[in-house]
Amino acid sequence: MTQNIYDNPEFFEGYSRLPRSVTGLDGAPEWPALRALVPDLRGRAVADLGCGYGWFCRWAREQGAAHVLGIDVSEKMLARARAATADAAISYVQADMECLDLSEASFDLVYSSLALHYVADLARLFAAVHRGLAADGRLVFSVEHPIFTAPTQPGWSADAQGRKTWPIDGYLVEGPRRTNWLTQGVVKQHRTLASHLNLLLRLGFGLSRVEEWGPTDDQIAAHPVLVDERQRPPFLIIAARK
Amino acid sequence: MTQNIYDNPEFFEGYSRLPRSVTGLDGAPEWPALRALVPDLRGRAVADLGCGYGWFCRWAREQGAAHVLGIDVSEKMLARARAATADAAISYVQADMECLDLSEASFDLVYSSLALHYVADLARLFAAVHRGLAADGRLVFSVEHPIFTAPTQPGWSADAQGRKTWPIDGYLVEGPRRTNWLTQGVVKQHRTLASHLNLLLRLGFGLSRVEEWGPTDDQIAAHPVLVDERQRPPFLIIAARK
Repeated sequence: MTQNIYDNPEFFEGYSRLPRSVTGLDGAPEWPALRALVPDLRGRAVADLGCGYGWFCRWAREQGAAHVLGIDVSEKMLARARAATADAAISYVQADMECLDLSEASFDLVYSSLALHYVADLARLFAAVHRGLAADGRLVFSVEHPIFTAPTQPGWSADAQGRKTWPIDGYLVEGPRRTNWLTQGVVKQHRTLASHLNLLLRLGFGLSRVEEWGPTDDQIAAHPVLVDERQRPPFLIIAARK
Repeated sequence: MTQNIYDNPEFFEGYSRLPRSVTGLDGAPEWPALRALVPDLRGRAVADLGCGYGWFCRWAREQGAAHVLGIDVSEKMLARARAATADAAISYVQADMECLDLSEASFDLVYSSLALHYVADLARLFAAVHRGLAADGRLVFSVEHPIFTAPTQPGWSADAQGRKTWPIDGYLVEGPRRTNWLTQGVVKQHRTLASHLNLLLRLGFGLSRVEEWGPTDDQIAAHPVLVDERQRPPFLIIAARK
């Protein structure tokens, strides 16, 4: 089973204070880039893998989705999602993404934001997504960028000339990385960018778009600290179609 | 015009001593990965962008290609290629890849090894390749990996614990990088991995395979120094089809 770090009290407490938890989709700087890849949802069936508080599920309904299924491993997240949702066309289900199955050809969009880097067997999950998508169905997801997840000791470094760098090692060595973020011992799965793409291509997905996300000039003007994210992308966003 | 560094005497002299120059394709550790993506060439028309000494052109003919066009900006390289080739079905042409055009629907494979990172206007060149490919034609190419080209001061670093890292900066800042390799002031174009893919997708190419190349266990056993390449991939290899 995937480590359920979101039900760790210290992690949950820290996570609930992040801008993206307090203000929802607009609190995430990469949301405009993700949103641009989401197809027209009117009348469509949508699944959100790692739905958290359900912000995207509710947004998808606002866009006209006919039905939305939010899936998460964390009961605490789902309890908040249910409390914030009054809409019979949104269902929330607790499930471990290591053994998730979706009913066949049932979804027009499978969406996932910053959840799949917790999944060890991504090949299995992508196969389940492929089966679960209707003809011409779309998969749009973000994960932590492989440059971000690769290092055995992730973090910024400054060289003798004051140049700020992100030292990489182990990029081609895939597998778990244990890091400290909000709490100790958070386990994420490092995979290369190519592995994400080739897993999809091997299943018969066509790739539509790949984004190595960085902040826009406007975002940097509003939040100057974001400028560092141009040194190395924090997020990878992929759009594919069945 | 692209900087023609290959006709710089110091660069040419250094380049001519590299294993890949002396022993040809098998002197390049990434060749098996590239070769695996090359389709059946029997009876096919092939173009090689940045053909250098013509090793790949001659190999393609050995595989049964009907005609091979080798293109390079360097007259010195082409002179050696011509001297090593006695085959009327191989033509060599001097051309700048910044303004190259290929005759329409004329090639079944366009191949390029470690040349496209010298090209500033890759969108224009990819469009020319797309026009030049026959229906279901393939593009297979390698470039220096964006993690390799990104840094303003590329090189290995060792931290206080002796961990060997490749410090990255400027990954999302595309454009020229001036480095010293074989001679001073070699100019390469840094582009993100996503930019390579999205330029192809926008033109209507389908992606077949993406490799972030690293050495195999056998290659490391034979050449232990290659182990560092697992810390960050030196080459990016992409296979696409029209």
